[in-house]
Amino acid sequence: MRCLIAEQSFLFKILKMTDNKLIIIKVGGNVIDNPSVLSQVLDDFARIESRKILVHGGGKVADGLLKKLNITPQKIEGRRITDEATLEVVTMVYAGLINKNVVAQLQARGCNALGLTGADVNAIEAHKRTKGNVDYGFAGDIDAVNTEGVAHLLKFAEAIVFAPITHDKKGQLLNTNADTIASTLAVSMSAQFDVTLKFVFEKKGVLSDPTDDDSVISLISYADFQAGKADGSISDGMIPKLDNAFNAMKAGVQSVVICGTEGVSSTVGTKLML
Amino acid sequence: MRCLIAEQSFLFKILKMTDNKLIIIKVGGNVIDNPSVLSQVLDDFARIESRKILVHGGGKVADGLLKKLNITPQKIEGRRITDEATLEVVTMVYAGLINKNVVAQLQARGCNALGLTGADVNAIEAHKRTKGNVDYGFAGDIDAVNTEGVAHLLKFAEAIVFAPITHDKKGQLLNTNADTIASTLAVSMSAQFDVTLKFVFEKKGVLSDPTDDDSVISLISYADFQAGKADGSISDGMIPKLDNAFNAMKAGVQSVVICGTEGVSSTVGTKLML
Repeated sequence: MRCLIAEQSFLFKILKMTDNKLIIIKVGGNVIDNPSVLSQVLDDFARIESRKILVHGGGKVADGLLKKLNITPQKIEGRRITDEATLEVVTMVYAGLINKNVVAQLQARGCNALGLTGADVNAIEAHKRTKGNVDYGFAGDIDAVNTEGVAHLLKFAEAIVFAPITHDKKGQLLNTNADTIASTLAVSMSAQFDVTLKFVFEKKGVLSDPTDDDSVISLISYADFQAGKADGSISDGMIPKLDNAFNAMKAGVQSVVICGTEGVSSTVGTKLML
Repeated sequence: MRCLIAEQSFLFKILKMTDNKLIIIKVGGNVIDNPSVLSQVLDDFARIESRKILVHGGGKVADGLLKKLNITPQKIEGRRITDEATLEVVTMVYAGLINKNVVAQLQARGCNALGLTGADVNAIEAHKRTKGNVDYGFAGDIDAVNTEGVAHLLKFAEAIVFAPITHDKKGQLLNTNADTIASTLAVSMSAQFDVTLKFVFEKKGVLSDPTDDDSVISLISYADFQAGKADGSISDGMIPKLDNAFNAMKAGVQSVVICGTEGVSSTVGTKLML
């Protein structure tokens, strides 16, 4: 009898864990800019059975539109800044064109998706970035995630699709990095859910040999990352990505993976460990 | 004692009625194109205490962007059609720029708003308009409203803001008239809610004398409308608006009003009766 109770309790634990699962997947320009790759990713994403959030970046569409409109992005110290005209364009492209097309394509796959920006239900509140006298334009650094609101919406919608636009709760929309949105959402939601955060990018994962696309490391520890930085085996482009990913893990996200598009609905890619 | 019970039952009825109230307000280009008018409308809309939905049209922003991008809207038999390039622009402007700015401005007013298109939670399903051999492009005629979904979202969000974009559930976004979205939503939601539908436009209401802006008729019956059409006192521009409004009323919407911006949070304007 005690054994039965123990078994039930174990099953309940497993059930609860499964029930608490939330997968957050960030896809970047390499997916958004390529219709056939996007289609495959959305097929795989629609098939994921747990609660799920897709965070998309912007890709080249916004750059193309800026060019067509003869808007030359302002740069300060080599860094592109989001001026008012650029903010209008990224709001149109990210929150309008890309977000709503992704939602419509998920609906076509039987996945009842809901597209959001940080302004909707005050999901992600941010402030205009300021550092000393440098004007970063309408770039938003995140202050808070409305975890209750997002959790509530996940009860009804089968998937939430986030555009990389936030707001300051004073009426101003802000352009916010999609990787940062994904990791901040993952950290906040991990208080309530068993979160897996996946960064989908051009390669199949973190490579032991940057010249060999098949040299994917299946598991990378924080010590490995530090060693790889020191001996130069981890390329410059990977460093901010891994920094962001390890920071999410340190802040409580249960599982973080860096992978290619084939990792959306499978376990391939590089899993991080502290 | 019986009296007390009767009183309680009456109070309960009143309470239930209040609890079941849903206001749907449609604002057009005259509001969207004028920042100070929009600001006043959003002040008033944020103050409405019942459940509320704002449906916005597009205004001149999309026309301006089409012009800047050298996209000449195609016309067939004098009627502008939504070709692919135009659909991209209206999706960007309506679902991105306008919808998200309205949501952010409502958030700034303490109103926890959520912006939607028809694709989000499959809120409004439509099909591409076809009539004989005429190609209307990507114009959507509405098939169904996901009333359960919209009602669920209204439990959490203080306001829903609809952009006039729908989808066909096969992955295609569609451009849909904002008046039609507002009236179809009102009809569908009136099965569950006590719906007031307000069309906010340039005039203060239906005018008895089209040359006198203050000659607002406070109440117009369907018979008055028919008589006004016959004797020419109701202007051509008002006819499709009143047709749409009376159709909503005939289909079960409890209260329909045509008013100016001052009618958003007050009872001024023209009330329809069958």
